[in-house]
Amino acid sequence: MSSTIMKQILVDMDGVLADIYAHLIAYEYRESGILLNQQELNGKLEGEAFPSFEKVVRSKGFFRTAPVMEYSVEGLNYLNNKYKVLIVSSATEFPDSLTEKLAWLNEHFPFISWKQMIFCGSKDSICGDIMIDDHIKNLGSFPGRKILYTQPQNALIQDPSLERVNTWQEIVGML
Amino acid sequence: MSSTIMKQILVDMDGVLADIYAHLIAYEYRESGILLNQQELNGKLEGEAFPSFEKVVRSKGFFRTAPVMEYSVEGLNYLNNKYKVLIVSSATEFPDSLTEKLAWLNEHFPFISWKQMIFCGSKDSICGDIMIDDHIKNLGSFPGRKILYTQPQNALIQDPSLERVNTWQEIVGML
Repeated sequence: MSSTIMKQILVDMDGVLADIYAHLIAYEYRESGILLNQQELNGKLEGEAFPSFEKVVRSKGFFRTAPVMEYSVEGLNYLNNKYKVLIVSSATEFPDSLTEKLAWLNEHFPFISWKQMIFCGSKDSICGDIMIDDHIKNLGSFPGRKILYTQPQNALIQDPSLERVNTWQEIVGML
Repeated sequence: MSSTIMKQILVDMDGVLADIYAHLIAYEYRESGILLNQQELNGKLEGEAFPSFEKVVRSKGFFRTAPVMEYSVEGLNYLNNKYKVLIVSSATEFPDSLTEKLAWLNEHFPFISWKQMIFCGSKDSICGDIMIDDHIKNLGSFPGRKILYTQPQNALIQDPSLERVNTWQEIVGML
């Protein structure tokens, strides 16, 4: 038993808990016949890299059926026992994503309660000590410890204020 | 033109922008034939006051069809021109409410963008300078200026750390 106050950790969904790139690649291929590889995606935001992005992310079922990132269930469960975890997801831009993301969390991460979920437009006003995210736009203004989860769109970024991780095993190893 | 940084104001939906009591009274009457009056509601949380509360708030369409609080459109528009407004609503407990609340905001408050919306379980981790809310559980731990919007459930509360308002006209007059 410890008397220290638990640190609060903000965990992103798309690109951190959900393997949204694998999902986008599959949807893009189905939609347009274009099969993108990792090399072609590096350094481009999702909307630039995937020609059908706008259509795909607004299609019913996209977020509900996203694959779960490898080892993220075990990893988040570990964090949830050690920290005050909040799942913070950009969702209000895509109205259908809201209930889909909530149902997806309930299915794959049943140990996360509705009290731990935040669906927002911007993450600027969410307080925490640590943030795990794959987007610079979210980490940039965060005043706490910033952990960048590697995804193709951020692969070229070099920023000493960020701690880069490539897997959930690495997250568990450092937190 | 002013060079001061805009203060951030967190505005609640149910009981502040949406006249959720009028809506609950109507739904309760339809559901059970019980017609509750203001006197019977005072000092009780909604779940205690309305026998059909749990059923009603989980029924499809409830949040989508809530009446708009008098003068709230003009009032929020005024705030939106003067402050950085964030709409912060407890919503993740009731999955269907998420997309309904977003559609409701888009219909009645079209000047509020998706970037200004936060749907959460707990409001403890949302930063701001001013909070307008009808629930003590949300205002209690808020470190900024706390404005309590009068509703039957909070009618008996006397707390000098809160500024009580009864109408949107009062909000506009003081902010």
